[in-house]
Amino acid sequence: MINDWIIEQSDFSETGQNGLMESLFTMGNGFLGLRGDFPLAPSPVEKGTFINGFFESGAITYGEKAYGYADNWQTIVSLPDGKGVEFEADGMPLVIDRKSTVNLNRVLNLREGNTIWSFSFTDGEGRIFIGHVTVLIPFSRKGTVRFLWKLSIPESVKSLTIKSSLQTLKKELNETDDPRLPGHFDGSTIIYSALEVKTQPVLAVRAEGSGLTALCSMENKTEGLMELQTERHMDESGLWDVMKGSPGREILLEKTVSYDYGQTDNFETVISDLLQELDGCAKEPFYKDLETQRNYMDRYWGRADITIDGDEEAQLSLRYNLFQLLQSTGQDSGRSIAAKGLSGSGYEGHYFWDAETYVLPFFIYTNPAIARSMLKYRISILPQAEKRAGRLSHKGILFPWRTIDGEECSAYFPAGTAQYHINSDVALGLVKYIDVTGDESLLEEGGVGLLAGTARFWCDLGSYVEGKGFCFHNVTGPDEYTAIVDNNYYTNLCARENLLSAARLLEGKVAEEERRIWMQRALEIYLPPEEGVTPQDDSFLQKEKWDFVNTDKSSYPLLLHFHPLNIYRKQVLKQADVVMAQALFPSELSVEQKKRNFDYYEQVTTRDSSLSACAQGISAFHLGYEELAWEYFNETLHTDRKDLHGNVSHGLHTAAMGGSYLMIINGFLGFEVKAEGFFFNPALPGNLKRLSLNLSLKNSNLNITLENDRAIYKSGSGTVQFYHCGEKISLPEGEVKQFALLPKEKKAFTLFRPKI
Amino acid sequence: MINDWIIEQSDFSETGQNGLMESLFTMGNGFLGLRGDFPLAPSPVEKGTFINGFFESGAITYGEKAYGYADNWQTIVSLPDGKGVEFEADGMPLVIDRKSTVNLNRVLNLREGNTIWSFSFTDGEGRIFIGHVTVLIPFSRKGTVRFLWKLSIPESVKSLTIKSSLQTLKKELNETDDPRLPGHFDGSTIIYSALEVKTQPVLAVRAEGSGLTALCSMENKTEGLMELQTERHMDESGLWDVMKGSPGREILLEKTVSYDYGQTDNFETVISDLLQELDGCAKEPFYKDLETQRNYMDRYWGRADITIDGDEEAQLSLRYNLFQLLQSTGQDSGRSIAAKGLSGSGYEGHYFWDAETYVLPFFIYTNPAIARSMLKYRISILPQAEKRAGRLSHKGILFPWRTIDGEECSAYFPAGTAQYHINSDVALGLVKYIDVTGDESLLEEGGVGLLAGTARFWCDLGSYVEGKGFCFHNVTGPDEYTAIVDNNYYTNLCARENLLSAARLLEGKVAEEERRIWMQRALEIYLPPEEGVTPQDDSFLQKEKWDFVNTDKSSYPLLLHFHPLNIYRKQVLKQADVVMAQALFPSELSVEQKKRNFDYYEQVTTRDSSLSACAQGISAFHLGYEELAWEYFNETLHTDRKDLHGNVSHGLHTAAMGGSYLMIINGFLGFEVKAEGFFFNPALPGNLKRLSLNLSLKNSNLNITLENDRAIYKSGSGTVQFYHCGEKISLPEGEVKQFALLPKEKKAFTLFRPKI
Repeated sequence: MINDWIIEQSDFSETGQNGLMESLFTMGNGFLGLRGDFPLAPSPVEKGTFINGFFESGAITYGEKAYGYADNWQTIVSLPDGKGVEFEADGMPLVIDRKSTVNLNRVLNLREGNTIWSFSFTDGEGRIFIGHVTVLIPFSRKGTVRFLWKLSIPESVKSLTIKSSLQTLKKELNETDDPRLPGHFDGSTIIYSALEVKTQPVLAVRAEGSGLTALCSMENKTEGLMELQTERHMDESGLWDVMKGSPGREILLEKTVSYDYGQTDNFETVISDLLQELDGCAKEPFYKDLETQRNYMDRYWGRADITIDGDEEAQLSLRYNLFQLLQSTGQDSGRSIAAKGLSGSGYEGHYFWDAETYVLPFFIYTNPAIARSMLKYRISILPQAEKRAGRLSHKGILFPWRTIDGEECSAYFPAGTAQYHINSDVALGLVKYIDVTGDESLLEEGGVGLLAGTARFWCDLGSYVEGKGFCFHNVTGPDEYTAIVDNNYYTNLCARENLLSAARLLEGKVAEEERRIWMQRALEIYLPPEEGVTPQDDSFLQKEKWDFVNTDKSSYPLLLHFHPLNIYRKQVLKQADVVMAQALFPSELSVEQKKRNFDYYEQVTTRDSSLSACAQGISAFHLGYEELAWEYFNETLHTDRKDLHGNVSHGLHTAAMGGSYLMIINGFLGFEVKAEGFFFNPALPGNLKRLSLNLSLKNSNLNITLENDRAIYKSGSGTVQFYHCGEKISLPEGEVKQFALLPKEKKAFTLFRPKI
Repeated sequence: MINDWIIEQSDFSETGQNGLMESLFTMGNGFLGLRGDFPLAPSPVEKGTFINGFFESGAITYGEKAYGYADNWQTIVSLPDGKGVEFEADGMPLVIDRKSTVNLNRVLNLREGNTIWSFSFTDGEGRIFIGHVTVLIPFSRKGTVRFLWKLSIPESVKSLTIKSSLQTLKKELNETDDPRLPGHFDGSTIIYSALEVKTQPVLAVRAEGSGLTALCSMENKTEGLMELQTERHMDESGLWDVMKGSPGREILLEKTVSYDYGQTDNFETVISDLLQELDGCAKEPFYKDLETQRNYMDRYWGRADITIDGDEEAQLSLRYNLFQLLQSTGQDSGRSIAAKGLSGSGYEGHYFWDAETYVLPFFIYTNPAIARSMLKYRISILPQAEKRAGRLSHKGILFPWRTIDGEECSAYFPAGTAQYHINSDVALGLVKYIDVTGDESLLEEGGVGLLAGTARFWCDLGSYVEGKGFCFHNVTGPDEYTAIVDNNYYTNLCARENLLSAARLLEGKVAEEERRIWMQRALEIYLPPEEGVTPQDDSFLQKEKWDFVNTDKSSYPLLLHFHPLNIYRKQVLKQADVVMAQALFPSELSVEQKKRNFDYYEQVTTRDSSLSACAQGISAFHLGYEELAWEYFNETLHTDRKDLHGNVSHGLHTAAMGGSYLMIINGFLGFEVKAEGFFFNPALPGNLKRLSLNLSLKNSNLNITLENDRAIYKSGSGTVQFYHCGEKISLPEGEVKQFALLPKEKKAFTLFRPKI
């Protein structure tokens, strides 16, 4: 039996796995994130220390530029590496390598929120050193990481030197044709400097282009070294604390590194905040922060945990995913969750629609304060979104397709600016937050502008076509293997929901006449009739199908092996927009229509996107394709832990993580939030014996357990109102209600799938 | 009455006109081109000396790159300036400026192919200097320009110094959002050096990226200086010959500058060719080259001239255009005609579809040897076109949208690679050449590969749609205000003609089965039914019309003021593809259909492209919209001479020049070349009294005159067979045949036009 709270590595011999392991063992608290490279793990692939929101920026160079293109790139910048610690015994360096290592092991404890390294190794004289290091990034603090080293020292060692460092990293330019990797930045505009503030050395990382400066500093404390001599070195390449003495049988090193950032012209305040944080932290014993972290995680798992019986691997990956979502997401209203969280520089640290569509629901249902913070971030960038819409001659607001600080950074508009659905993704995130939590205060804090701005945008973007309705031409949906098309189904459907929700929630907050127009436009929006297959867009079904039979396995992902035009020209999908739409809005189409759609699109979807599995899985589950649904559940669930796309070394796939949660809620529970209330249509997958979780609904807590063909609802606090399979239920606090689950058709079902 | 062979400038006071004048007074011989900047004209805007085909190249930087994007840019590089000549009288520089100038004038003589400057000015002591300079770029030579200065010297001048130079020009990086201007190149990879070869100084311009080196050298000879002392200076910034002596009453300076280029690793051969050319030229008296040029121009105008009675301005602009087309087009099978000829670095010296669609017919009808050379250039780049098709996973060949040496250089694929019609534009150019000249030898010299390669490409690109036919998805037609659409009418129609012509001309040269497939595909190609308006593409007519009423005049051209998506989303055209198609293939649609199309598209066409006027004009004329046709004729005709787009300073518009010829041939003569023969349906525009020209048809010469409501055909040599208004005519050598012209409806007709 595996421990389903523990991610462990004890084999370090396959160095080809280093990048993957560094990503998997990423730690963070939503503000600060450290990849799992560490002095004990040799040959780091990408040393990474990131602040969520600290970036460099510069002018995008285009092969051919035109009006309205995004002006500047933004890219997350790795900060000085504070992990470094080296030891010397009797003047000889202690080297941990394959020859000397007796034992090496690391454990990421999801339950407690820390990582512990254990090791034993021999020095040149065969003496054995045993120790362990605890790594902690407290959620209770801002940008601080703490390390506690314990090392047992052989008796014959007379002198021990510890060198603890905080070192700047030089960046190399990454020349690549892979649009998923950062390519612009050669690091030349980052200025490193070292300064001393009231005897405290501080490293400054000034990003000339963005006007931001990050600062960091460290404290080192040792125990167990007698006749201690300490030295400190500093220059623009880093800080070194050197501690030398005569060791007892055990020595301790408590290392604390704090990071913060701000506008370069507000330097003094940032320094003062940083030193206060560092000082406060260094004064607090390590074990106290460990305990605070445990308490924090207790509360977190009390709300967020999902227990699964019947598949230990699934249980572990699910917890891993929910843990990494927490670690990756900002909680202070000034930042959100990047496509790769804080685990790498892939996708440049940008926020996409992934944040609201794939991750936000998890926080809405389990941790509304974090969901609120994510939405506050979007509200904070409304001025940029309004400016962007204006520059593009549109009314209302247009959120950037990818950004850190709110400015559009997508350098390829057919799969950037044209993905206007970002507007409804964000707006419907806000709507879901309000409908689920009942917290309408966000409306007064900027939410009105967000909802009204997106509604106005859609009214301006579309145009009325006689005999068809209100149409959106030249848009790109989520599927990036099709671009610049007319009436993308997902876009049209979300725009309608956006308009209807804005009209519903803004009653009395905008002019009645405007609300009336929104409702009218919403109802006029063109959606294809229920017949045949719902077309992804006006022209999709006329195109030739991709020749999957003659496409070699090595030619996937297609985007790296075929020109965009060849991909756009064919019926081939990175992710299926119609399936995504029917997964998120299951009551929109009849079961028959959804089945026709699913059967059709399943054949032409490559799964080249890590965002596709959950949508296909949810819809498959709704349609009774249990085996396939389970396969997709495993795909989204294990994307990172099992490196299913082979690129985890560039960073984690936060959308796939969020997708694994969505598959349980939207899929297995069949949960839907509508203006009329909360709707459950649950079913337990055949591979599971039991599934149990908590949802936070309107300040109440609802526990739902599926087991033995029963659905058991229990209200943890307050009275919860909802629908079970269409039946209206009102459940007072503490009460339990059980329902028999409808027996599901369980056909062994295998669809034709692209040969990959 | 104006002299309709002369372009003259005598007012140099408006310095804002300098750029325009430099472009207009460009001289060249298809290989070498010099803008009209000159020491006598102050404040040059762009000093330009170009070799057609000499370029620098480097990797295109993309904001976001993907598979199959063009790898490298290419840009024409200005060569060392050989125009410079300075004088000193008695140690004081002679400065021609507004204060000192008594008289300044230049004349571009279209008839004789030279430019003559005349001037008189005073020095500081009030002495008057009178002189003139003749500038000649002989068509009979390769890369040589000759200057003959004559200067009368006041008696009191004791000493005269002449400094004649050949100077390198440093380039500044051009940062721009205007995709029509070159933006990549900062000149940093151009290495200038000076060397001496057998006492002859040579300047070398090495373009590191392209591996090409251009070389140049000069010779100076004076007469009329006694006690002549000569000095020569040279370094990497240039060559200077300084000649000093005691002047007689008139001095002469004969300056010859030769340019050539080649692969850098073939340096020695290029130098040897260059010095041979320079030496041969410098030995030939200037007047001999002048005479040879006159003879050349005699022959040229004998074939190419078109005489017009009734509009002197039109006569002059027409001759100007036909002269500049000759000057701009390579004749040695290794180069073609760039979008701006050799008159500027706009569009980077690239060849586009303009060459075959707008310019080639003129040479086919008047100078088939030059047309043959242009097609030989395309044949020479077939290997690159085959490679490009392969890289994009297509069969056959794909010509680059823009290029110098054959490699695709378009950095924006929606208005680049997606403009697949380049393939049929070139192929149908070859077909027209063969059908008009009867010269099938080009087929054996590579033409088979060109025709078969394009035919195979179309078969591979398209796909069969049930109920519709063979369709081309995701293509861009000539109209760049609409991109990546399905079944662009122009593209589909040209692809059909390409396939049919390939099948017709390659009988016995490819497998019968393949010819059969081409014919079958051709007949299956989807073309919309004759009803309503012929849609430019499948979705065009569903889009909203551009709001012309609320678009300010300053917002044109739209591409500089609106995001591409906003333009693509609306019914608004840079040029009208359906109108273009019905201008080039007038018998394809019924008159009623063409009229509906014209009336419709006329309303949504901005004329932001200089390529649009001739197509609209031809179709207008065909439809009896005489007044409008005349307006369009004037637009294409005077584009450059009257600077109608306000950007002639960046270079001439060769397509508009070619368009003015097309308007006469396709429009006024109603001429159509079909497999069945030559068809004339002539009409004389009401604004003209007489129109007369010669056409070279199957080795025969046909003179056509329209006057007094008659069409007069005269066979200059051989028997000519053709159709006049459907009647088959066979005209033996020397015979004349007259026909009454049908009276045309002359309605005063004004269409709604965008408010610009």
